[in-house]
Amino acid sequence: MRTFKLTIEYDGTDFNGWQVQTNAKRTVQGEIEAVLSKIFKKRVVLIGSGRTDRGVHARGQVAHFRAVTDMPCDEIQRALNFNLPSDIVILKSEEVGKDFHAQMDAKWKTYSYTILNRPYRSALERRYCCFFPKKINLSLMKKEAKELVGRCDFKTFANVDPSRTCDAIRTIRRLDIKKKGPYVVLTIEANGFLYKMVRNIVGTLLEVASGRFPPGSIKKMLNSRDRRVAGVAAPPQGLCLEEVFY
Amino acid sequence: MRTFKLTIEYDGTDFNGWQVQTNAKRTVQGEIEAVLSKIFKKRVVLIGSGRTDRGVHARGQVAHFRAVTDMPCDEIQRALNFNLPSDIVILKSEEVGKDFHAQMDAKWKTYSYTILNRPYRSALERRYCCFFPKKINLSLMKKEAKELVGRCDFKTFANVDPSRTCDAIRTIRRLDIKKKGPYVVLTIEANGFLYKMVRNIVGTLLEVASGRFPPGSIKKMLNSRDRRVAGVAAPPQGLCLEEVFY
Repeated sequence: MRTFKLTIEYDGTDFNGWQVQTNAKRTVQGEIEAVLSKIFKKRVVLIGSGRTDRGVHARGQVAHFRAVTDMPCDEIQRALNFNLPSDIVILKSEEVGKDFHAQMDAKWKTYSYTILNRPYRSALERRYCCFFPKKINLSLMKKEAKELVGRCDFKTFANVDPSRTCDAIRTIRRLDIKKKGPYVVLTIEANGFLYKMVRNIVGTLLEVASGRFPPGSIKKMLNSRDRRVAGVAAPPQGLCLEEVFY
Repeated sequence: MRTFKLTIEYDGTDFNGWQVQTNAKRTVQGEIEAVLSKIFKKRVVLIGSGRTDRGVHARGQVAHFRAVTDMPCDEIQRALNFNLPSDIVILKSEEVGKDFHAQMDAKWKTYSYTILNRPYRSALERRYCCFFPKKINLSLMKKEAKELVGRCDFKTFANVDPSRTCDAIRTIRRLDIKKKGPYVVLTIEANGFLYKMVRNIVGTLLEVASGRFPPGSIKKMLNSRDRRVAGVAAPPQGLCLEEVFY
């Protein structure tokens, strides 16, 4: 039995998220498992570093599977890419230690969130950014975002996930906000993310930066540990899982 | 009667090109004309700077229409963007001189062509680039491309267009080739383009740069004035109409 680690890029637009669902809707995990099962001629289970929601993209999702096979890694990669639909691609295929676990062993994850900030939307980038036409106070956004860096209880920014119960304490070690032409790109790195945490943080930061919430709101909200006080989640298409660190 | 100039961005993936067709298929011109006719409550004809083929994108297509109206330009832009599908957006709406003609008055046009040059395709960029896994000799490609700059007869690189008969003499004033990470981006600026000219040039340059045709081929092909000697057209999704100069 060998263990393989895959690094995966996908365009989340036409998927119902990463995780296989009982309702037979199209998912990234489901598509890859189907191809792996075809290649190895038996059912293969693929475990991702974590789920991504419907419409969310990945430039560096990581997953593992175990199989009894002599096939070299690069041949597995080629066979997967040949058989996978065009909105999924395997960037890398490596053999790893027998006990490697893509979810349990993940130490840090990096997400990016891209906002298009101009008066009119984009046709070419519409699948990969969130359109926000209101004026953004960038320096205020950066200042408020600093409150989120460090080890905190992020309950305010987590939606309830019925499938998981865990505490809400996480560490954000990086939260960069950069302007690139008409785009504002946030990069968030943490040792774990709660359900909808990035989208709730981005949505709330946008509401502070556009004047709907007063300066100082982020700190107050964080301390309240109450999801109801924060802003609405930013839409999924701006979000991309960039990298998973082990 | 006033004349309006529109600058248009579109994602060509799901269109049968720019130009309205008799078979009622979805076209960019057709979608915009339908919305204009709705806004002005009478049939409006939209004239583009030129056609783009099925699957070809635009970041700066220009078109004009004439209408009797008091509506300010920015209101026209807003009404169009509100009613247009998400894969078309009006970047700019201006009132211009009565006699302005988007096609006749166009002096220069810039197209870009994006090639993804790595062993595996991309999921996130698949709609906007051409995947070319073979090794590209970039300095040879640049050297060969120089033969195409200037005033030439480009018959070799033109497909026959049954709807137009004209000579094949055009001037390319710029043909840049730049490497950006795994991408090779060509930028071509000319005073006019023949049918499939950019895609035929890019396809042929790729065949020279990957060793299928010997060095010196471009010059010989150009002199032959024979479409049959050149390479196959590069696929449409890498091509984007960037700008039209008046």
